[in-house]
Amino acid sequence: MDRPAAFTVSTGPAIVSDRVRAAQGMQSGYHEDPAFKARFRRLGDLVGQVLRTSNDIVLMQGEAVLGLEAALVAAVRPGMKVINVASGPYGKGMGWWLDAMGADIIEVETGFRDVPTAEMIGAALAANPDVELLCVVHVETPCGTVAPIAEIGRLCRAAGVVSLVDAVASVGGLDVRTDEWQLDIVVTAPETCLGGPTGLSLIAVSPEAWALVGRNPRAPRASFLSMLDWKEKWIDGDAFPYTPSIADVHGALAACEAFLEEGADAVLARHAASGAAARAGVRAMGLTLWAHQESDMADTVTAVELPAGLTDAGVVARVRERYGVQLSASEGAGNQVRIGHIGETARSLHPVVALAALGQGLRDLGATVDIGTGLEATLAALSERPNV
Amino acid sequence: MDRPAAFTVSTGPAIVSDRVRAAQGMQSGYHEDPAFKARFRRLGDLVGQVLRTSNDIVLMQGEAVLGLEAALVAAVRPGMKVINVASGPYGKGMGWWLDAMGADIIEVETGFRDVPTAEMIGAALAANPDVELLCVVHVETPCGTVAPIAEIGRLCRAAGVVSLVDAVASVGGLDVRTDEWQLDIVVTAPETCLGGPTGLSLIAVSPEAWALVGRNPRAPRASFLSMLDWKEKWIDGDAFPYTPSIADVHGALAACEAFLEEGADAVLARHAASGAAARAGVRAMGLTLWAHQESDMADTVTAVELPAGLTDAGVVARVRERYGVQLSASEGAGNQVRIGHIGETARSLHPVVALAALGQGLRDLGATVDIGTGLEATLAALSERPNV
Amino acid sequence: MDRPAAFTVSTGPAIVSDRVRAAQGMQSGYHEDPAFKARFRRLGDLVGQVLRTSNDIVLMQGEAVLGLEAALVAAVRPGMKVINVASGPYGKGMGWWLDAMGADIIEVETGFRDVPTAEMIGAALAANPDVELLCVVHVETPCGTVAPIAEIGRLCRAAGVVSLVDAVASVGGLDVRTDEWQLDIVVTAPETCLGGPTGLSLIAVSPEAWALVGRNPRAPRASFLSMLDWKEKWIDGDAFPYTPSIADVHGALAACEAFLEEGADAVLARHAASGAAARAGVRAMGLTLWAHQESDMADTVTAVELPAGLTDAGVVARVRERYGVQLSASEGAGNQVRIGHIGETARSLHPVVALAALGQGLRDLGATVDIGTGLEATLAALSERPNV
Amino acid sequence: MDRPAAFTVSTGPAIVSDRVRAAQGMQSGYHEDPAFKARFRRLGDLVGQVLRTSNDIVLMQGEAVLGLEAALVAAVRPGMKVINVASGPYGKGMGWWLDAMGADIIEVETGFRDVPTAEMIGAALAANPDVELLCVVHVETPCGTVAPIAEIGRLCRAAGVVSLVDAVASVGGLDVRTDEWQLDIVVTAPETCLGGPTGLSLIAVSPEAWALVGRNPRAPRASFLSMLDWKEKWIDGDAFPYTPSIADVHGALAACEAFLEEGADAVLARHAASGAAARAGVRAMGLTLWAHQESDMADTVTAVELPAGLTDAGVVARVRERYGVQLSASEGAGNQVRIGHIGETARSLHPVVALAALGQGLRDLGATVDIGTGLEATLAALSERPNV
Repeated sequence: MDRPAAFTVSTGPAIVSDRVRAAQGMQSGYHEDPAFKARFRRLGDLVGQVLRTSNDIVLMQGEAVLGLEAALVAAVRPGMKVINVASGPYGKGMGWWLDAMGADIIEVETGFRDVPTAEMIGAALAANPDVELLCVVHVETPCGTVAPIAEIGRLCRAAGVVSLVDAVASVGGLDVRTDEWQLDIVVTAPETCLGGPTGLSLIAVSPEAWALVGRNPRAPRASFLSMLDWKEKWIDGDAFPYTPSIADVHGALAACEAFLEEGADAVLARHAASGAAARAGVRAMGLTLWAHQESDMADTVTAVELPAGLTDAGVVARVRERYGVQLSASEGAGNQVRIGHIGETARSLHPVVALAALGQGLRDLGATVDIGTGLEATLAALSERPNV
Repeated sequence: MDRPAAFTVSTGPAIVSDRVRAAQGMQSGYHEDPAFKARFRRLGDLVGQVLRTSNDIVLMQGEAVLGLEAALVAAVRPGMKVINVASGPYGKGMGWWLDAMGADIIEVETGFRDVPTAEMIGAALAANPDVELLCVVHVETPCGTVAPIAEIGRLCRAAGVVSLVDAVASVGGLDVRTDEWQLDIVVTAPETCLGGPTGLSLIAVSPEAWALVGRNPRAPRASFLSMLDWKEKWIDGDAFPYTPSIADVHGALAACEAFLEEGADAVLARHAASGAAARAGVRAMGLTLWAHQESDMADTVTAVELPAGLTDAGVVARVRERYGVQLSASEGAGNQVRIGHIGETARSLHPVVALAALGQGLRDLGATVDIGTGLEATLAALSERPNV
Repeated sequence: MDRPAAFTVSTGPAIVSDRVRAAQGMQSGYHEDPAFKARFRRLGDLVGQVLRTSNDIVLMQGEAVLGLEAALVAAVRPGMKVINVASGPYGKGMGWWLDAMGADIIEVETGFRDVPTAEMIGAALAANPDVELLCVVHVETPCGTVAPIAEIGRLCRAAGVVSLVDAVASVGGLDVRTDEWQLDIVVTAPETCLGGPTGLSLIAVSPEAWALVGRNPRAPRASFLSMLDWKEKWIDGDAFPYTPSIADVHGALAACEAFLEEGADAVLARHAASGAAARAGVRAMGLTLWAHQESDMADTVTAVELPAGLTDAGVVARVRERYGVQLSASEGAGNQVRIGHIGETARSLHPVVALAALGQGLRDLGATVDIGTGLEATLAALSERPNV
Repeated sequence: MDRPAAFTVSTGPAIVSDRVRAAQGMQSGYHEDPAFKARFRRLGDLVGQVLRTSNDIVLMQGEAVLGLEAALVAAVRPGMKVINVASGPYGKGMGWWLDAMGADIIEVETGFRDVPTAEMIGAALAANPDVELLCVVHVETPCGTVAPIAEIGRLCRAAGVVSLVDAVASVGGLDVRTDEWQLDIVVTAPETCLGGPTGLSLIAVSPEAWALVGRNPRAPRASFLSMLDWKEKWIDGDAFPYTPSIADVHGALAACEAFLEEGADAVLARHAASGAAARAGVRAMGLTLWAHQESDMADTVTAVELPAGLTDAGVVARVRERYGVQLSASEGAGNQVRIGHIGETARSLHPVVALAALGQGLRDLGATVDIGTGLEATLAALSERPNV
């Protein structure tokens, strides 16, 4: 098992493109070199374009979980009232953090196979006029579901509530319009749909969000967890609070450039086609998609319920060892496995590779799967909506 | 200034080798792929070999400042008595953190052109029998000085005090023997003398240090700042607390492999030769080395006092723009510039490149510098102690 | 169509591994650098190991066609009697060259769907006692067939005839034992089964072959076509006749190292498994394999006859444009398309990718294909003989 | 000596840029992939721009010596009258080839420390009205000299003579204006001043040159040496005569793009500055430049006569082993060593590195060299004409 999987169709980190790899492999140099500082500035600009915002872009130097923690710890004061949308393990984890930080939490729950409607969010906002922050996960990767953040953003703004969106698993694969949807804090990362490196958090922060942070006397400074350091030293100044992760910055720049050159429309279309083809295949194989509603399913990740008697770890290991294909096991949502359609794997026949491996792996383990019919359905879907 | 410097002889991050670049540019994949997990495990093993220790190795996923903050926040309780050795801006910064965390600090100071002797440390330990932690920076990069950590480590252990060493700027260039010297927490990183990527903290933690952490009820968990997460989930388990920075891990692995294959003796010898050659050149040019004592000067960084009337920013900018060579400006220690001899720049004629650029840049700006004599002295030194 | 195919399952050049890519991207330098000369020497050694021979290894600096032409032009004198085994377009092309060089040719023909038996070769040798050279193509890539070179080599040696084998499409995927099989001139290249770069010819030359060349007064010298330059200057001396192709040398070295580390047995087994799985799939789809006999089919390339009314160019273009998969069109053998199982594509589900794309492409163009059954057969075969 | 030189300042192949390295390391794929064919077509277009010509561009798949031999073998008929300008070993070698091909040669000689004047060429043309071809080397790398090809091209066109220019060591570093100067066959390569890979010949061919080739019934076809194959199959068709060297094509494309983006003026200026600085340094060191006239010296290569008693091999080996710097030994012109200022080494302080290493190496071997004065002169020259 020294050799990485020949095909990785996991939910992320994803495989990266040649362009990103070349960028990661560039000579490194000194972060104070003016050429590097120009690149870092440019990365902020491009992330703003990807997120469709003119808000400040904070580039934190650790993978997405750093950005999420940093945003929360900057915004949340003990006793502050927060609505937390918990339709999956990630949302639940956000609640854990909020609780540890002393927030007074109103949790909007749906179970892990559904997502809340805009109406549910509107009702929660209306019922809690003193809420200051609402947290929501755009794509609950563990469940394969997508929340209605366009509506949620506008509802929050109308209610004077700062919205904080975990868009780590969606940006670059699903539509995210920060300014149009009035989203306040959008946390994403390069390593999923953008097909970039793991190791950075990309955060858009609105003036409303900065105002909330300004009201928190314990918002960290001089800390790896501090968004304010980056705001005050880099965005408003020209100094790095500490040394950026150079190879990751180079890779993220390449990923953003590739996204913008291909164009959001084209990129989103191939993610949509890949997701649709995978779902068609799963159904035709006689398997069950995890979420209840097709309309709740994210095009970037397909979660498949496992037949009784099989475990996610067992299936993933079989497929990896026997066929050299890496799927994602469950991540706390239930007995399922997951396939990513993210970045480079939202192209060409990656859904076929994933379903062929999954189908045969299930059959090897004793399940009844109609592999051929499933693959034909996937191919037929791709024939109508090519995703090259 | 879009083009990076042709020659980077900064104090770090350094240029990286072809081997590291190739590793950084490898296909990325999924962190749960067994092949990646094996690589991550191997990185821990190799870091242990580099640090000459059988202690636990915590690999935190952010550049060195994360590791330092994480170690402090894990170890320090409000009111805890801590000796802080502050012989430079980095040591002073450590004191700032200790203060913010509520420690009761005994600061051992020397000014920025000297380092404390072992006797001074011994006296401080003797005078403060209730101290629990001693913090010291091995190489004060801003000053170009090196502290006697071999003695300090043993004194601390004898006194029952946990030692915490910032060895970020020394490991891979100067001798660091964690177990032999009885060092408890050694924090380093791949991006300086090891010639690896920026973005990771490599931390050796002794049982004594874990015991101290165990006495701190506020040591973070479920946080990007948490050493305990890595201890409990990865070291004692087999799970990642969050997604590692894959390209950086690949690069760090290559850097450690290269160090171990070349062998510590050979690597340290070429750092020593480079530093000695640079110092000979600086003196022969008629310039002044920053530190007072030759014996306090680190072979990995040469700090040069600037002639009156010149600023570090001005000199560094001139040299960069005019000659394509990137030096390091001062970092809070005084009016000086610095040259690194770290990793790949501790080879061949890099000291000549650095001093030729510095000398001509100073002359351009009106200083009197005997460039030719200086470069001849550097070359003569290298002729006797080649550092290929 | 600016973007290369997401999946390339052509007959070669093949996709290359990360290791080869990294090697190709290394810093280049000067060919007279002792470090480069050592690498070049090492490449010769490793090629000898791959070819299982202690004969001289000539590394010519152009793709395989250079090596073939160079070998012929070195060996063939006008009027010299040569047996040419022509079971495909490549063998036919060899005959064209022999004719242009004035050889007196005895052509052993079989049509393009069969290969000659050892008996046929033995008879030709017996009937032509004054033959000096026999030329044979090991794998006729255009036909997907493999010739019995083990027997042919021994028959030639017994008859005192020099054998020249075009093993370009087989070495690294099929067994080639130069010394054991008494083969005299074996011409191969890194870009097919070894998964290396295009741009080199790797040639093993026996003493018997050099003796034949020695009898040719017109064997070129001081020419890009000259094998003798490399023999006399590099092999028997230590000088390059001209500048080697540095990146290709680096890449080929990495490819040979990878082959030898994985081990011939493991490598050949996964090529065999891939070929067998592909053939099972083709048949189960209701399509026709090109060659008449299963035993004549090479595991490294699967040639599939096209249904009437379809053209190879049309099918290949459809599959490439619609699904991002690159197959090989016919190369002069008839109305067929071809799939390679070479190097990195002789792993994992590459045969599934190739057949899914081909099957759906054929269906799109109006053919009747049982895609699902075919893919199930391929997967079932891989389930029994995994080729990770 | 496993490790390549830390600094390569040879006469070529040169070190390559990050951009070229990244291109060489891209995934390889199939040459018939439409995306690759588009890249190959684009390479021809860019080479035409670099050579400032609208003539056909033939891209042959072997290093420069292939292009030179191919051009000669296509153009030269036995008994054809050819003027050969032989002012160095390369020109002499061209004469050797011409002789082997049966040409009737008029050799214009100057010795190896001078170049012919335009008047000398004019006289030779006037005295030989039946000449059909004139061969000249633009930069005689072994001598460090440059011939007046602007005038030679025009004189040839006026006389109805086809000119063939070996511009391998000049294109990308010195001005070459194919159409304006009426040059007929210009042979160059990516690996010297363009800073690209070794392994390709880039040839511009005028209609007049094709007409000459058309009069040669023995111009090769179906051969690795054939320019006509590329003309007829690729330029006038859309088919490759054989498989191109994919990594080299990718690298050459990147090198041409970089040249055109930086702009010829900027590129030539930094080559000129580097050459001038090196020559100033050599003189100030008390050493002797090889050529007699400063005006004959090429900015891309500095040839330095060795003090009596030293050998080129000895000096180059000393400098390489002791200081990790790779110079070029002599190449048949006399007792000298050479420094390249080509591509990436025509930037920044590369001339300082080269002369520091050379000077100290000479001193180590017992010569009297004024190293300091020499390096000061080099730096002073660069201070006036920066070449970043």
